[in-house]
Amino acid sequence: MQLYSFFNSSTSYRVRIALALKGLPYDYLGVNIRTGQHRHAEYIDGINPSASVPALVDGDFTLGQSFAIIDYLDARHPEPRLLPPDPEQRARVLELSMLVGCDIHPVNNLRVLRYLQDTLKLTPEQKDAWYRHWIDEGMAGVERLLARHGHGKWCFGNAPTLADVALVPQVANALRMGCELDRYQRAMAVFAHASAHPAFAQAAPARQPDYTA
Amino acid sequence: MQLYSFFNSSTSYRVRIALALKGLPYDYLGVNIRTGQHRHAEYIDGINPSASVPALVDGDFTLGQSFAIIDYLDARHPEPRLLPPDPEQRARVLELSMLVGCDIHPVNNLRVLRYLQDTLKLTPEQKDAWYRHWIDEGMAGVERLLARHGHGKWCFGNAPTLADVALVPQVANALRMGCELDRYQRAMAVFAHASAHPAFAQAAPARQPDYTA
Repeated sequence: MQLYSFFNSSTSYRVRIALALKGLPYDYLGVNIRTGQHRHAEYIDGINPSASVPALVDGDFTLGQSFAIIDYLDARHPEPRLLPPDPEQRARVLELSMLVGCDIHPVNNLRVLRYLQDTLKLTPEQKDAWYRHWIDEGMAGVERLLARHGHGKWCFGNAPTLADVALVPQVANALRMGCELDRYQRAMAVFAHASAHPAFAQAAPARQPDYTA
Repeated sequence: MQLYSFFNSSTSYRVRIALALKGLPYDYLGVNIRTGQHRHAEYIDGINPSASVPALVDGDFTLGQSFAIIDYLDARHPEPRLLPPDPEQRARVLELSMLVGCDIHPVNNLRVLRYLQDTLKLTPEQKDAWYRHWIDEGMAGVERLLARHGHGKWCFGNAPTLADVALVPQVANALRMGCELDRYQRAMAVFAHASAHPAFAQAAPARQPDYTA
């Protein structure tokens, strides 16, 4: 398989964790979204029509969108399962994953922050306040979900699921942006536990071939 | 079952379509997100820790996040299936659904538009330009995905899937906001076809008990 990825992209990071957890080898193909490589015609026409990272190539099947890719990997390579088979357990995992993936990440990703800065001419202070606002609103929801339904050292039980795969890159991103997250105690305990796992460590931005400081 | 919903919420609209396609009866419980009912302590503590609509109550199981809810309904009530069992077909459906659900909808929902208006004090023209920018970027991706992989009268084949369930509320929202969408010919053909389907029509905002003009 080949993975089109950017080291600092949270959505790419999710897929790298899933691949590492499943022990699947792949070729890493860096796509620099800071310089706009994901918008080049050859990438859109040849790899990913939605002009984003990540994209997975598995033989003659090419797929974008991190959650679609991880669901596909779970179907093709079910061990270890990242989406539990039981409908209620699965629903809990998806609920937290979608809170991160739909409610937190999209409003704070690179293209949005660039629009705030370049088109709306926000000050750095306004941009930081925007970032922190959505992190706090979203992480409060994550913390309440974990308080209600979480158990074990991972989000839901004693093995990683898609929920952990979604949470870790989001927390790492927020820490990198200087957010104060100590109050989200359950989420941060999961983050600390997960970050020490070899698959999560291996997938981190600083370990990728296209990493730059 | 009970559904906590707001008539004009695209994420609630998705779940209403899924319930209607599956022919499942439910009690409609309106949550006015314009007045902040989704942030009331009794709603957060009793129904949805992530302080959002929709939320589904199925016996003693309560669940938030539209995609988690629809996945759960597909497991519990598999006919008609909204997520195909075949891994590649399923991946295609999820890819387009996540493009809408992660890349388009979140940056243009009520809370974000309110922040632009109330906190950042954008002009109505700036807010409209923001809205149209993300619609155009996202719908261009939808159109390219449909050009590459779409077939039949629905997004993918001759029956509705989660992709159509995600697309229709997004297009309806953009039309309501005055966006010009004619150039997205494939997406608009699917929208026209789907809108005429009784389940999609029944789920539309104007048909809900909490609708106000």
